Amino acid sequence: MPVMDINADLGEGFGVWELGDDLALLDVITSANVACGFHAGDPLIMRRVCAAAVGRGVAIGAQVSYRDLAGFGRREMDVAPAELTAEVLYQLAALDGIARAEGGRVAYVKPHGALYNRLARDPAQARAVADAVRAYDTTLPVLTLPGSALFEVADGLTVVEECFADRAYTPEGRLVSRREPGAVVRDPALVAERAVRMATEGRVTAVDGSEVALSPRSVCVHGDTPGAVELVRGVRAALADAGVRLRPFA
Amino acid sequence: MPVMDINADLGEGFGVWELGDDLALLDVITSANVACGFHAGDPLIMRRVCAAAVGRGVAIGAQVSYRDLAGFGRREMDVAPAELTAEVLYQLAALDGIARAEGGRVAYVKPHGALYNRLARDPAQARAVADAVRAYDTTLPVLTLPGSALFEVADGLTVVEECFADRAYTPEGRLVSRREPGAVVRDPALVAERAVRMATEGRVTAVDGSEVALSPRSVCVHGDTPGAVELVRGVRAALADAGVRLRPFA
Amino acid sequence: MPVMDINADLGEGFGVWELGDDLALLDVITSANVACGFHAGDPLIMRRVCAAAVGRGVAIGAQVSYRDLAGFGRREMDVAPAELTAEVLYQLAALDGIARAEGGRVAYVKPHGALYNRLARDPAQARAVADAVRAYDTTLPVLTLPGSALFEVADGLTVVEECFADRAYTPEGRLVSRREPGAVVRDPALVAERAVRMATEGRVTAVDGSEVALSPRSVCVHGDTPGAVELVRGVRAALADAGVRLRPFA
Amino acid sequence: MPVMDINADLGEGFGVWELGDDLALLDVITSANVACGFHAGDPLIMRRVCAAAVGRGVAIGAQVSYRDLAGFGRREMDVAPAELTAEVLYQLAALDGIARAEGGRVAYVKPHGALYNRLARDPAQARAVADAVRAYDTTLPVLTLPGSALFEVADGLTVVEECFADRAYTPEGRLVSRREPGAVVRDPALVAERAVRMATEGRVTAVDGSEVALSPRSVCVHGDTPGAVELVRGVRAALADAGVRLRPFA
Repeated sequence: MPVMDINADLGEGFGVWELGDDLALLDVITSANVACGFHAGDPLIMRRVCAAAVGRGVAIGAQVSYRDLAGFGRREMDVAPAELTAEVLYQLAALDGIARAEGGRVAYVKPHGALYNRLARDPAQARAVADAVRAYDTTLPVLTLPGSALFEVADGLTVVEECFADRAYTPEGRLVSRREPGAVVRDPALVAERAVRMATEGRVTAVDGSEVALSPRSVCVHGDTPGAVELVRGVRAALADAGVRLRPFA
Repeated sequence: MPVMDINADLGEGFGVWELGDDLALLDVITSANVACGFHAGDPLIMRRVCAAAVGRGVAIGAQVSYRDLAGFGRREMDVAPAELTAEVLYQLAALDGIARAEGGRVAYVKPHGALYNRLARDPAQARAVADAVRAYDTTLPVLTLPGSALFEVADGLTVVEECFADRAYTPEGRLVSRREPGAVVRDPALVAERAVRMATEGRVTAVDGSEVALSPRSVCVHGDTPGAVELVRGVRAALADAGVRLRPFA
Repeated sequence: MPVMDINADLGEGFGVWELGDDLALLDVITSANVACGFHAGDPLIMRRVCAAAVGRGVAIGAQVSYRDLAGFGRREMDVAPAELTAEVLYQLAALDGIARAEGGRVAYVKPHGALYNRLARDPAQARAVADAVRAYDTTLPVLTLPGSALFEVADGLTVVEECFADRAYTPEGRLVSRREPGAVVRDPALVAERAVRMATEGRVTAVDGSEVALSPRSVCVHGDTPGAVELVRGVRAALADAGVRLRPFA
Repeated sequence: MPVMDINADLGEGFGVWELGDDLALLDVITSANVACGFHAGDPLIMRRVCAAAVGRGVAIGAQVSYRDLAGFGRREMDVAPAELTAEVLYQLAALDGIARAEGGRVAYVKPHGALYNRLARDPAQARAVADAVRAYDTTLPVLTLPGSALFEVADGLTVVEECFADRAYTPEGRLVSRREPGAVVRDPALVAERAVRMATEGRVTAVDGSEVALSPRSVCVHGDTPGAVELVRGVRAALADAGVRLRPFA
């Protein structure tokens, strides 16, 4: 019986500002990437999301980011490696402490936004993040794209491939840039179908019609768009119907 | 043989900005109150200070604060208790993770600035901070003033009294406000002498000449003033001369 | 023919986070209190709101605040007067420059949140804010509560009374604290009726049934609650039906 | 009689943190690049520096930056053009309002740190900054490097070349990267001599011994290094001895 994890970004409000429907998402995902205060999330939001995740058996991941509230962590920054390592360590430890206060713990790390994309191709920043995770807990897996520079610098760390059910892929197995037309798959039935093929066959159809092989242990869904919860619910139901067992990858 | 601890605030720079001479202070104190990023301190500074403290056998304390970089945590804020608890938990866990990555750990908590003063008289905020410490690690002691509201809300938590060798005391054992003349004792010989009496006799002479009884387990010194390191060195030497053994209180 | 202004808080998002429906509100109000980046608002949001306000002939006010994004400016802070003056001057000038780039200008000042309330009773902070406004442009009016300390320290500055159609009043003409039951009037018809009486009779019925005299030149409405736009539309229609001419007070 | 301006970065503290000796520098420079709060500087520091500059007849420039206090504006950021324009406009207007409150005004713009370097080669960000300056005041000149992309997108804006007396130049007239050995000229006599040749001959000797032609209207000096004030004093004296008249370029 195939097994799959569904992860989504949570806790991405700040102060009075809200983003996405955390509680509804927690009912349909198996892993929550919880913002750690650098691109979004404040300590109280972090605590509430952790409590709710623990209550539902959803795994907690540290969604570490560049320090950039104004830009939501979406702008690449040339942070020096030693500083990036310390910043990731800080965020990871802060969230883990909060998760433990709620009876859980951080079970994995998922870099956010511009940092996530940068790590896929920049060995220096990838090494800086890997150093932080190893310094905190060498057993924590890190989620990333296939072919990411994180695999090269893992050095004992567990680096785990994830896939995106609602994103178009190039024939090389990379995500089509959001600046290109058709980068995002919007038809819920198609998204669900792609998730099932990814989970059961390890394959997805690329934009040119060719078949791409993937080995994901988690499928990422986006929670901050209108209809997001419905979309994820559809993915979850389709996976269950296809005989895929849903559980946290970490 | 009497025992005493000397604590000082460290790691209070931010980014390019420096404050105080952390390395020189680490050679003369036994406990370092390390800023956690809310009033001062950034992850890289925190990491460097922790590494240096571990290397010298100096205990690491979490110098938790209101979220106020612009005001250096010196302005009281009406933070709601649940939010304050989460903020303290966040800072404490972040520093502890960094300390552990350097082979140490957070051994105690010392609230900073306006929060320190507020806790002395506000049971609601005192309880919020105590809740955070208990949620993280019930064995961590918290440094405070004699008579602080923290003692009332401790509820199993270890609350520890500290004294200030360079501050004038009222007959009631409180610190003379910095707005009053004579609030700060500047003569290094007098500061050292007061520290010795506090440590060996549990007494200090108040501003009106009366004697005040104290039971401190740590003496706080200020490290960000000109001549601070020399002043602390004098306190340390005088305590040693008086047969007081210096070691971390926690 | 009586004249009245309707003011509301706008531009209170930050980065990716949104709050309220600025464009819909701009169609029904006559004065926009635009957040200046200290409790909410970023330069791009400020610019967009100013452009939209100018396009609709809505007056732009500087909604100056304590520096507190995490708390949305809702927590009182003991900011030193010289610092508060400089902070208000900074925000006011920043918004005015942006408004002028869009063909408008800042026409008045409305302090936000905890600062607004503090100014009503603290002459030191009130004087600090008045100093900032005078230093920038002595002709800019400042909106406040009846009886505010701002009136005492005006010293040539124009201080203008506003009223709140959806808030209960004490017999002394003060707002009932939000912590008290009944502090907010929620029935749209009643809110509209109160606004009309305030505008045409200069009167409101207090919580004890007594009549309170008011001399408002603007009525404040809240834009960030569900149904807010509909509520304001009702106030606007009722005022028009009662023969009140709506136009910016400044 | 040749004329030259000496500019330096000022007001680069934040809250309790200080950087450089603003008052000493103001006695030896003719133009002050005042930080506007995004990489350094807070409203009170800005106000004090403006007051001191006005009192000495030193011109005030807006030292606009990326929003990055933690990195002191030294890290390149992929800020979207519309956002960058709004952020520069915000900073420029804020400083100008403060300068006017002190009897002065912003006389020019000098981008800071990573933004300064990025503008030299990125037409999109250069255009975004130029748009902000034009939107605020089309007559304000902008300081930049020779060959900067700002010249290409000026479109009516006055873009002014500056030179660096203590930096080595490539044969192409660019600054040698700080990562290269010999990038900074440290000998005060040599720095002064180079400043004189730049001002009187429009020439500097490059690292390979060749001569480079420059047309600077201002020479930039760094104020945050030990001995900086002495260095600038030497430059100033040498320029005066060589018959160069010192006055603000703007």
